[in-house]
Amino acid sequence: MKRKELIIVAGLIFLLPLNAQEKKYPEPAPMTPAMTEYWQPQPQVVTPDPVPSDAILLFDGKDLSQWESVKGGPAEWTVENGVFTVKRGTGDIQTKRKFGDFQLHIEWRIPEGIQGESQGRGNSGLFLQGIYEIQILDSYKNETYVNGQAASIYKQTPPLVNAMRKPGEWNSYDIIYTAPTFKKDGTYRTPPTVTVLHNGIVVQNHTIIRGTTPYIGLPEVEVHGDGPIRLQDHGDPVSFRNIWIREL
Amino acid sequence: MKRKELIIVAGLIFLLPLNAQEKKYPEPAPMTPAMTEYWQPQPQVVTPDPVPSDAILLFDGKDLSQWESVKGGPAEWTVENGVFTVKRGTGDIQTKRKFGDFQLHIEWRIPEGIQGESQGRGNSGLFLQGIYEIQILDSYKNETYVNGQAASIYKQTPPLVNAMRKPGEWNSYDIIYTAPTFKKDGTYRTPPTVTVLHNGIVVQNHTIIRGTTPYIGLPEVEVHGDGPIRLQDHGDPVSFRNIWIREL
Amino acid sequence: MKRKELIIVAGLIFLLPLNAQEKKYPEPAPMTPAMTEYWQPQPQVVTPDPVPSDAILLFDGKDLSQWESVKGGPAEWTVENGVFTVKRGTGDIQTKRKFGDFQLHIEWRIPEGIQGESQGRGNSGLFLQGIYEIQILDSYKNETYVNGQAASIYKQTPPLVNAMRKPGEWNSYDIIYTAPTFKKDGTYRTPPTVTVLHNGIVVQNHTIIRGTTPYIGLPEVEVHGDGPIRLQDHGDPVSFRNIWIREL
Amino acid sequence: MKRKELIIVAGLIFLLPLNAQEKKYPEPAPMTPAMTEYWQPQPQVVTPDPVPSDAILLFDGKDLSQWESVKGGPAEWTVENGVFTVKRGTGDIQTKRKFGDFQLHIEWRIPEGIQGESQGRGNSGLFLQGIYEIQILDSYKNETYVNGQAASIYKQTPPLVNAMRKPGEWNSYDIIYTAPTFKKDGTYRTPPTVTVLHNGIVVQNHTIIRGTTPYIGLPEVEVHGDGPIRLQDHGDPVSFRNIWIREL
Repeated sequence: MKRKELIIVAGLIFLLPLNAQEKKYPEPAPMTPAMTEYWQPQPQVVTPDPVPSDAILLFDGKDLSQWESVKGGPAEWTVENGVFTVKRGTGDIQTKRKFGDFQLHIEWRIPEGIQGESQGRGNSGLFLQGIYEIQILDSYKNETYVNGQAASIYKQTPPLVNAMRKPGEWNSYDIIYTAPTFKKDGTYRTPPTVTVLHNGIVVQNHTIIRGTTPYIGLPEVEVHGDGPIRLQDHGDPVSFRNIWIREL
Repeated sequence: MKRKELIIVAGLIFLLPLNAQEKKYPEPAPMTPAMTEYWQPQPQVVTPDPVPSDAILLFDGKDLSQWESVKGGPAEWTVENGVFTVKRGTGDIQTKRKFGDFQLHIEWRIPEGIQGESQGRGNSGLFLQGIYEIQILDSYKNETYVNGQAASIYKQTPPLVNAMRKPGEWNSYDIIYTAPTFKKDGTYRTPPTVTVLHNGIVVQNHTIIRGTTPYIGLPEVEVHGDGPIRLQDHGDPVSFRNIWIREL
Repeated sequence: MKRKELIIVAGLIFLLPLNAQEKKYPEPAPMTPAMTEYWQPQPQVVTPDPVPSDAILLFDGKDLSQWESVKGGPAEWTVENGVFTVKRGTGDIQTKRKFGDFQLHIEWRIPEGIQGESQGRGNSGLFLQGIYEIQILDSYKNETYVNGQAASIYKQTPPLVNAMRKPGEWNSYDIIYTAPTFKKDGTYRTPPTVTVLHNGIVVQNHTIIRGTTPYIGLPEVEVHGDGPIRLQDHGDPVSFRNIWIREL
Repeated sequence: MKRKELIIVAGLIFLLPLNAQEKKYPEPAPMTPAMTEYWQPQPQVVTPDPVPSDAILLFDGKDLSQWESVKGGPAEWTVENGVFTVKRGTGDIQTKRKFGDFQLHIEWRIPEGIQGESQGRGNSGLFLQGIYEIQILDSYKNETYVNGQAASIYKQTPPLVNAMRKPGEWNSYDIIYTAPTFKKDGTYRTPPTVTVLHNGIVVQNHTIIRGTTPYIGLPEVEVHGDGPIRLQDHGDPVSFRNIWIREL
């Protein structure tokens, strides 16, 4: 083709889409800034320090008055120096209050000089609504099955990374939990979800919890309402402090 | 009714569901613990202190080498005493690197003795992927439209609570962001979502971002890929420090 | 290379990854098929023809006994030949029953020979739980604003495609709706979602409904419980038939 | 109390909330209807009959030219009278084209006079993207494990109800499928989801697919891109017709 022909053809090609789109549609009418400005309700003011002013303190460093033994009666774990510690053989403890959706802060410590390996080292657990276990374990240079290491949803979902501190140092969990809703047939209408920061690092990111977290077998869906925060006596002297919860 | 009659009636009531359900179905075969134990891949080990070992440090306290001016050229904000501060009139700055899904930690401070009210007091902003603004403002005893106060998704969603510290004190944002994906027609296939902790308190909880965050008009959906962290020069001397990001 | 050398080199290559990955982890213990087989509860048997046996028939072709006027009193629309039709000026009608999550089937027809354009042609509407409008309109060769055409979530989300049949022919909507849940502060804990098939074609795909669907202004979140199916009297003689609903 | 006192007390009670809420906030500025009206892009027009005009016909009633054997070579199933039927021992077949998100319509029939029980009666399967099986089985008066009956996500999620027609009659599946996206570590960033209508009745409602659907063991997450529609040769003479797919 000669150059001139080429230009003409190119022009025609260009015209086609122009013709196809020549229709003009109205644009949405212009708005002003104040049309998208909402003044109420003003969010509640919450002072963040030392703990959020709308938080329920679940341990004041002095006693376990907010807790009870799961098998009945008072919580019998050891309280000392502003810290409480699993007392082997006394069984799991749980908060007296029950919760739906919440933000929970909790700190926990594996004792220095801990011995053992895999699941046999610093094992405890935190049960959301008394049912869904976030694993507590010494995962510092201690490999185990990954859906059973610290910050896993037990026997379901491993943490994104292993953010564990050394034995003797305090670990923190910041947990954002959304409770499930149920259909009439007893299955989840909306499943529980959880976000966990371990020592400030995201290790569960809006993870769907698939049901119960049994040692043996698969997750099952059980209908439940609000439930307590439950801590596990797995026989190891894991310690806890600075526990607060905010209802969402 | 006499006691004996009562027992018989109770028995009949009990028999009805038994009859209705007399069909026996197999139970799932029993499992062993090891069937639900996964050992690999082992999650990456990340040491949490002083910043996560897999984080990219976006400010080392010394210079703005990780940042550039949005209008081109080097970032011209003021660096002093391990802190950088908006330099009025130099324009927004953004990271040289671009990000998809991430966890971001950032600290910011409104200067003590700040004057003004509503949007005219300590105004800046943090744009996720350069596009979606999380508001930065002095919201300490300073009411404004709630979808424009600190920790709001600007002109969309107010924070759940107002967790602001006083002028002169440092605030922190911990942000977990999931980038959108797009359909061929340019709409969201999955919208962006964001969780924000303001001073450790959940203020956005897996909130869906509906589109851009303009001052005037409604959110719009724009196709984009990875983008920078962008900070706004709104003319007010807001300061920043301790900024790190982890790609998720 | 001689054959023997080749074998040695191959061996070395093979050793490299072995060294890198030399750690051996247990595999999950093997399972049997019956471990993942659940026999109960057996899903309810529903015969699909002519309408699902668990459906509530909302119109039997004879009368509007399942419906009432929204402004009070009996529904006054016209019933003729197994079809009912908007009677201009009598106002919206709604089901006497209220619903939460549901699957709804409904057929509707624009009269042959319809005149008018844009919103002024065969306008009606279907309100989910009495609140959220799925638009009913003649969108056959009749352009209007796309978030106001047939099968749009009114003033929110246009349909994925325009699947409209000609005036005089019957259109069907198959709607799968999930009702919202609310937080104590009156915002959505989970927003309503809807999937719509228009004449068998997916036009809304698990779309999030952002709030009310007003003619003027932005969606607002109003707390509500179960609600009726409501049909709009917009002054145009749109007809309906074959309406059934299944609670989910 | 005397009447006058009562009025005063009532007035005081009323004043309390008034005092508490006396602060007046601005309302968002009023809008006009045209501010929320979007005219473009106009959704694509799709004529719905006899099949959607934007659908890919996967079987024209004449030959299996759109299909191939999974083990290689042409699809060898039997085509007769506008219908194709599993030819025992020839293996699974799959579409030559691969798909991401889609809407699929397919009709299938169990032969009249079928014998056998549980999984041994009219067994086939439809694999989404070649990977995730929606069960095809004679579930008419034939109990089996519920996560293995017709319209189950095999070995995962049973259908909401059993909507099966009799052997000799045609069943339909209308499937809305959203493909997964993956993170760099090979896990789901967003899991696959599926909605299934069986004979027009919702049996899977935006169900999350948890991974592969093996006969033995648990779902696993495998990274994959677009994939074919695959049909299973399980040895039973199940027939198919009227298959079309629309890319979403």
